[in-house]
Amino acid sequence: MRYREFVIEGRNAVIEAFRAGKTVDRLFIQDGLQDGPIQTIKREARKQDTMIKFVTKERLDQLSETGKHQGVIAYTAAYEYANVEDILAAARNKNEPPFIVLLDNIEDPHNLGAIIRTANLAGAHGVIIPKNRAAGLTAAVARTSAGALNYTPVAKVTNLGKTIEDLKKEGLWFVCADMHGTTMYELDLTGPIGLVIGSEGEGVGRLIREKCDFIASIPMKGDIDSLNASVAAGVLAYEIVRQRM
Amino acid sequence: MRYREFVIEGRNAVIEAFRAGKTVDRLFIQDGLQDGPIQTIKREARKQDTMIKFVTKERLDQLSETGKHQGVIAYTAAYEYANVEDILAAARNKNEPPFIVLLDNIEDPHNLGAIIRTANLAGAHGVIIPKNRAAGLTAAVARTSAGALNYTPVAKVTNLGKTIEDLKKEGLWFVCADMHGTTMYELDLTGPIGLVIGSEGEGVGRLIREKCDFIASIPMKGDIDSLNASVAAGVLAYEIVRQRM
Repeated sequence: MRYREFVIEGRNAVIEAFRAGKTVDRLFIQDGLQDGPIQTIKREARKQDTMIKFVTKERLDQLSETGKHQGVIAYTAAYEYANVEDILAAARNKNEPPFIVLLDNIEDPHNLGAIIRTANLAGAHGVIIPKNRAAGLTAAVARTSAGALNYTPVAKVTNLGKTIEDLKKEGLWFVCADMHGTTMYELDLTGPIGLVIGSEGEGVGRLIREKCDFIASIPMKGDIDSLNASVAAGVLAYEIVRQRM
Repeated sequence: MRYREFVIEGRNAVIEAFRAGKTVDRLFIQDGLQDGPIQTIKREARKQDTMIKFVTKERLDQLSETGKHQGVIAYTAAYEYANVEDILAAARNKNEPPFIVLLDNIEDPHNLGAIIRTANLAGAHGVIIPKNRAAGLTAAVARTSAGALNYTPVAKVTNLGKTIEDLKKEGLWFVCADMHGTTMYELDLTGPIGLVIGSEGEGVGRLIREKCDFIASIPMKGDIDSLNASVAAGVLAYEIVRQRM
């Protein structure tokens, strides 16, 4: 399980958690409290769409682990990054050739969440994102992943190119999506594979593209340039699923 | 061309256009004007992320069609709905068997926009949405469609079930996406086809599902329930593309 829950007790600690952008999943406030810090907490909760439960002091005393809740207890979510090794281990445990989705330049949390969701359902063993520029595992990512973040490991690496080199030594082939590639139906995508998806605007960066063994293109029969990044990831991931069946 | 541009001149007319939620694509304001209504227009433009061009009075006089611009001219976009017949005509003109995407219960404008974008690139001849509940062709839909709304006709119908019946008489087969269907790779999706996509929460409604000839499912190999609606639409639309190639 990659998801951990933390209990935060006391007014200042809860206010700080909100301000630090932590995802507060559940918030308990003592019924009847109206002071300034409590108003601040309610306001922050509304901003984040956090549901507030108003409860008695006795209930808070029960929930409290420290005994110093000051009328407010919050439960925050934290998703932990996995290592690349965890992803390879997941494939080994299932006795399947590794299938990893790598994201180059995906900055939009909705695309990141949707791609983690797709990776889960397409049976990928994990997602790798670069440390710089990428969207982190925020509340928005968790929400759009529709729960997939609880199951599919996401690793954050310093140098995506180096990670690709390392994984090649593990036997993986790399395919990246690009308009100017070979039609995906004509490629053999059945072995241990890394699927590299780039951003909509820029696509996969040149240095990363040059490290890929294949360049796959999705047939474009229309008038505009490119699919939404998460749709493109879905179409390519499912071509891999089809070929593996 | 389904896109039309309207010129709006004069302060009140431009303020009203903003307040009516119209998409102002371009806005010209006479340099140096600082009065209240102009400030209001600037504020509304900022809210909508409309770029403002400050120009001389002479330039506005040139652009003006009415001669009564009062220092401001706006260009708004409007997308017009097509008829189902327009969609069939588009297929005939291309000499292709009709390929239509029908959306049941898709209310989210981002999903609608992304699906129109996918429909365009997968070579579908049009998109049909029901009048009630569906998201309309708003600025958000236009933006997420990445320009596809300019090319792919979208028809709005009163009764989606009746439209399906009518299109069956034109020779179309209907396939809807549902978890409990036949794996899509095992279905013949090559003829004149209508692809019915439902919302993420509810899927395709029962009455509509019962009118479909096939129920197609996307293989789900993960731990969670379902793909994002626009990703599912993309995966299915591209299975149709693959089979037609």
